[in-house]
Amino acid sequence: MRVLICGMDGYLGWSLALHLAKRGHEVAGFDNFSRRSVVAEIGSQSMTPIQNMENRVKAAKEVHGLKMRFGRGSTLDYGYLRDVLKESKPDAIVHLAEQPSAPYSMMDREHAVYTQQNNVIGTLNLLFEMREYARGAQLVKLGTMGEYGTPNVAIPEGFFDVEYRGRKDTLPFPRQAGSWYHWSKVHDTGNVAFACKIWGLRSTDIMQGVVYGTRTPEMSDERLLTRFDFDEAFGTAVNRFCAQAAIGYPMSPYGTGQMKRGFIALVDSIQCMTLAIEHPPREGEYRVFNQLDEVYGIGELAQKVAKVAREKLGLKTEVKGIEDPRIEMQEHFYSVDNQHLKDLGFKPTRSLEEELEIMLGDCVRYKSRIEEKKEHIAPTVTWKEGKKGHGPLGPA
Amino acid sequence: MRVLICGMDGYLGWSLALHLAKRGHEVAGFDNFSRRSVVAEIGSQSMTPIQNMENRVKAAKEVHGLKMRFGRGSTLDYGYLRDVLKESKPDAIVHLAEQPSAPYSMMDREHAVYTQQNNVIGTLNLLFEMREYARGAQLVKLGTMGEYGTPNVAIPEGFFDVEYRGRKDTLPFPRQAGSWYHWSKVHDTGNVAFACKIWGLRSTDIMQGVVYGTRTPEMSDERLLTRFDFDEAFGTAVNRFCAQAAIGYPMSPYGTGQMKRGFIALVDSIQCMTLAIEHPPREGEYRVFNQLDEVYGIGELAQKVAKVAREKLGLKTEVKGIEDPRIEMQEHFYSVDNQHLKDLGFKPTRSLEEELEIMLGDCVRYKSRIEEKKEHIAPTVTWKEGKKGHGPLGPA
Repeated sequence: MRVLICGMDGYLGWSLALHLAKRGHEVAGFDNFSRRSVVAEIGSQSMTPIQNMENRVKAAKEVHGLKMRFGRGSTLDYGYLRDVLKESKPDAIVHLAEQPSAPYSMMDREHAVYTQQNNVIGTLNLLFEMREYARGAQLVKLGTMGEYGTPNVAIPEGFFDVEYRGRKDTLPFPRQAGSWYHWSKVHDTGNVAFACKIWGLRSTDIMQGVVYGTRTPEMSDERLLTRFDFDEAFGTAVNRFCAQAAIGYPMSPYGTGQMKRGFIALVDSIQCMTLAIEHPPREGEYRVFNQLDEVYGIGELAQKVAKVAREKLGLKTEVKGIEDPRIEMQEHFYSVDNQHLKDLGFKPTRSLEEELEIMLGDCVRYKSRIEEKKEHIAPTVTWKEGKKGHGPLGPA
Repeated sequence: MRVLICGMDGYLGWSLALHLAKRGHEVAGFDNFSRRSVVAEIGSQSMTPIQNMENRVKAAKEVHGLKMRFGRGSTLDYGYLRDVLKESKPDAIVHLAEQPSAPYSMMDREHAVYTQQNNVIGTLNLLFEMREYARGAQLVKLGTMGEYGTPNVAIPEGFFDVEYRGRKDTLPFPRQAGSWYHWSKVHDTGNVAFACKIWGLRSTDIMQGVVYGTRTPEMSDERLLTRFDFDEAFGTAVNRFCAQAAIGYPMSPYGTGQMKRGFIALVDSIQCMTLAIEHPPREGEYRVFNQLDEVYGIGELAQKVAKVAREKLGLKTEVKGIEDPRIEMQEHFYSVDNQHLKDLGFKPTRSLEEELEIMLGDCVRYKSRIEEKKEHIAPTVTWKEGKKGHGPLGPA
């Protein structure tokens, strides 16, 4: 199949590009390198020493004999989008070109507006250009489990059968997002579903859990590594815990640590997106996949990282909760359906403990790059006050 | 109370400004005159010969002795917003500064993006500036009943108690909007509720039905008239039917005419917004009012307009359904709660028939202004294809 990856330079984008190309798909993609620039903006860096895209594409050819195409562009540039769609004639478009950090979106007005503008308008541009130039293609769009929030009922996959005052209907499951970023994803969800309804576009909307992992099997050469962020904004929970463990910092789950979330390993996230791409929905169909493997409490996960770090890598570890900078329920019910991907054959690749061992090994290997930026691990952005002292020239 | 009206030059904005000032409130407002420019863009005009804001404010002083302040500015200009909030120190901010037309948003990519950008980012700017400079003020935000769509269950006011797989919760009622414009309102709803939750802002989010009417009691002088649109994009159903009847055109309900909607007269919409302003929610509270008086079928309404036009004004009338340019359910269940406003004392001012008689009188009075632009009454924008042949220079 011909697959176009929007946001191919990112954590998931590059991992997916390698995997799809290895499976024989014709891969093209673009990126505006915003992830590189926003991580630089907040003063941090990828733990893995990533190559620029030119070198990555070259290395993929040398190491695996893969051929990929890559261009620089943005979903906000609809003329560019149009040209890309006309030239690549995709069967599937994977939309990963969004600002993906909740804390980044909560810093201040400017970052909230940037996030919703980039994500919502970028997706709207993509939908309109698909209508004209890629009407039959599938849109695989990355959403987040965070769209649902933490309701006191089970979370179905996008829609639920409801009885209310004696009448029945199948309705979109209510969304209760927890940051300007998460709300931007909810807005996208509405827009994408509507485009499928009125224009007959087809889309898989992925509600993804928190992803963890440093590598996929295709990254056998260092030049092929994907990025790995550990800072307060772009580092996700498990990734940050592993980075903290590697440099002998206390692992810092927020609040009571009782908050539950769905998690999935990087390799399995790539497996799931591949399943969606290779099993497209029918014309006009809008379907939702909850993409997660297991549900854990955040504090419980920190303990698991600590155990593997201690027992398998001989690291000294400590878990030390800190005040929760977010506004979120600390203790809550959490039960999530993920049958759609299982129906397509999804099987987790390895256990959490096995994955943690690989990750911690990588974190130790690149610990000097974590140490260089370790001041960016602790949270400075709060949900109530944003980033304190933040102005055009940063804190005084 | 000190009330700031964002979008004071519009159909509702000007009517509300007059009413609030007459009740003794201190009224200030701003507008970027976008409604005047977009109606001119599509080639139409207000049926009522409206004055510019300078003359309106002057006339309000001469006729009623009212004092209002008005400035030119946009919610997209957050620096302007900040200055306005600092200077006006509002107790209530009424947010009417949005692009309000579904067909306009469906024309093409440019108009969809303009609508979501203006509405979503403008509201986001307002929320952030309120956090800094008007934290205690109430935000009265105009949404639309169209956010809910037409579910097969009763429509509560924003939230519902639901039981799902044996567990219970109170959740936001699912939104199923029917245009890019309506989705922009859904996006706003999420953003406003979230701001209340994390920052303690207070807001009344109004899900308003279709408004009809040409005037309020304060418009005793022609210079005080509010605008009245009858074109395909900015004219709402009843207003268009009255305009059609006045010039002897067949009234044109879409499709089967069986689609039901909630309606409210202009005077009663103003009454309801005033009730919300004068009875603010508590700190951190986000409440939803379904603002409508009665539910009618669209075809049924056309027949009612025809009857009043014939019997009270001696007009020759015809009702002639046309193909529905929208994608919407033609026959559906529709039952809507509107208890919150009743609890605050809302009482409809007059019957539909009485209101129609006043409206039709005005439409006959200004029929030459309808006739000048009558080619803009019939729909040219379809939900499936947008505005055909639309480009930067219009149709060839």
